[in-house]
Amino acid sequence: MAEMSRVLVIGGAGYIGKFIVKACAKSGHPTFVLETESTLSNPANAEIIKGFKSLGVNLVHGDIYDQKSLLSAIKQVDVVISTVGQAQLEDQDRIVAAIKAAGNIKVRFLPSEFGDDVDRNDAVEPAKIGYAIKAKIRRLVEAEGIPYTFVASNSFGGFHLRTLAQPGATAPPRDKVVIFGDGNKKTVFNKEDDIGTYTIKAVDDPRTLNKILFIKPPANIYTMNELVSLWERKIGKTLERVYVPEEQVLKKIQEAVVPHSVILSLYHSIFVKGDQTNFEIEPSFGVEASKLYPDVKYMTVDQCLDQYV
Amino acid sequence: MAEMSRVLVIGGAGYIGKFIVKACAKSGHPTFVLETESTLSNPANAEIIKGFKSLGVNLVHGDIYDQKSLLSAIKQVDVVISTVGQAQLEDQDRIVAAIKAAGNIKVRFLPSEFGDDVDRNDAVEPAKIGYAIKAKIRRLVEAEGIPYTFVASNSFGGFHLRTLAQPGATAPPRDKVVIFGDGNKKTVFNKEDDIGTYTIKAVDDPRTLNKILFIKPPANIYTMNELVSLWERKIGKTLERVYVPEEQVLKKIQEAVVPHSVILSLYHSIFVKGDQTNFEIEPSFGVEASKLYPDVKYMTVDQCLDQYV
Repeated sequence: MAEMSRVLVIGGAGYIGKFIVKACAKSGHPTFVLETESTLSNPANAEIIKGFKSLGVNLVHGDIYDQKSLLSAIKQVDVVISTVGQAQLEDQDRIVAAIKAAGNIKVRFLPSEFGDDVDRNDAVEPAKIGYAIKAKIRRLVEAEGIPYTFVASNSFGGFHLRTLAQPGATAPPRDKVVIFGDGNKKTVFNKEDDIGTYTIKAVDDPRTLNKILFIKPPANIYTMNELVSLWERKIGKTLERVYVPEEQVLKKIQEAVVPHSVILSLYHSIFVKGDQTNFEIEPSFGVEASKLYPDVKYMTVDQCLDQYV
Repeated sequence: MAEMSRVLVIGGAGYIGKFIVKACAKSGHPTFVLETESTLSNPANAEIIKGFKSLGVNLVHGDIYDQKSLLSAIKQVDVVISTVGQAQLEDQDRIVAAIKAAGNIKVRFLPSEFGDDVDRNDAVEPAKIGYAIKAKIRRLVEAEGIPYTFVASNSFGGFHLRTLAQPGATAPPRDKVVIFGDGNKKTVFNKEDDIGTYTIKAVDDPRTLNKILFIKPPANIYTMNELVSLWERKIGKTLERVYVPEEQVLKKIQEAVVPHSVILSLYHSIFVKGDQTNFEIEPSFGVEASKLYPDVKYMTVDQCLDQYV
């Protein structure tokens, strides 16, 4: 049996990073996490770090601004996954430079994405500029000829289903639900653990090389109207549905301040425009995760909602 | 009478930018706005641009990534105000470089801040990194010896009072209100128009040179408990107050994804920690706007809330 590829996760203690690190270590890949000493010693991250250690993850001090730590970490691995946060997205050119400098032409890079396809959407500002920053890194990776996989994981199910995608809410609605647009655009919610599992399955799969990995398992595709109906059946109650037409959504975005406006513009892209599902995945640019890995028992939206009844 | 100083606002069509541009043009300063052609021609900005034109604002095509447009715009003015958005904060070093290159050692720079004092707070991540980026620009401006004023305007009243600072809400609460922390920390809400007025008053005032301008008019300082009581008196109804203790707020932040976690961490800083008011303004670093300009008739929180009854 061939040795499993060695994987470095940069920013692995972050929101989606920790699920990817967990999936990586559990699957048997030698797993490395590059994080600053202050992140690793932050009491708020104690549980996460403890979990990493119990899984045998190798914690490496450093970050993308410390070229020496970055380069030496990259030299040890076959796959580099970036899960750095919003503020560092643009600075991922440092990772690209370090991969080039490391000189291993086979190292595959998965830049920090884990959202919607940044090349295929009708987003307005300020979401638009966020997508553009990720797209810029895509173009750089392509131009440099670095092997890559871009992961378009769509919405984080664990976070959004908990409130039925009601921004600011702390529980799913039981009386009234706000729906952006007509509620008929198909959207995708994936459990974060499953995003980790699919991502790790893909890291050394030749079928995902230089492709976008779309995570769109059939049982996780719902319109908001369908999602609300499913929830209504579970709680045995009909909710008042308040529809916000596009014009009004755009007005709210204009009148809101960052980062409130960022959330609104992402919701506009996903729920009003249907950007997660308004295109076909062509073999020229992408592959779908649940088709590639039919053995993965992902948690469905239906099962997810059962937790909150 | 001396000629009024000429003012350039970079990113003037943005959320707070438009209020600053309006105040600037109305006060008689020759006013220039640097924005990209795509921003200026975006139908979503049509109303804003029309307003600018009716006030005689000079619209200049360009942005901070186009060194030529930036430099030539800066060469025409005495004051440079940046109101660029989150994604461009770090890249304001380009503005600093252009001011140096322009060679007018008297040009005063107001970098994009218009929030809490980024040097005096107990913020946790991810708000912490956002503050750090603004602080980095402060340090650069100081190191380069460029005349400056940093505007700490505290919370945007027009945006936040509309919902009584309930994230995700579209109207002020009439049954239940969520309060982060014990609700006893003093916070500050200023109408955006007044932030514009105070900022423009400060641009050529020697008392604000190389200082932080804090906008903290006495009638706009409220604890959340006081704010809710004021609202209750206005609507003649007592609300259920749901308090979220700090430990729970920190847990919510950990479990939330960006930008939801950014909002939660900002609320933690403002409402739980009381970062807007937990220090004295020392003459060594700052001045308070309503004391400097007692003639400004600012809109009070009380007047603001009357609009929503």
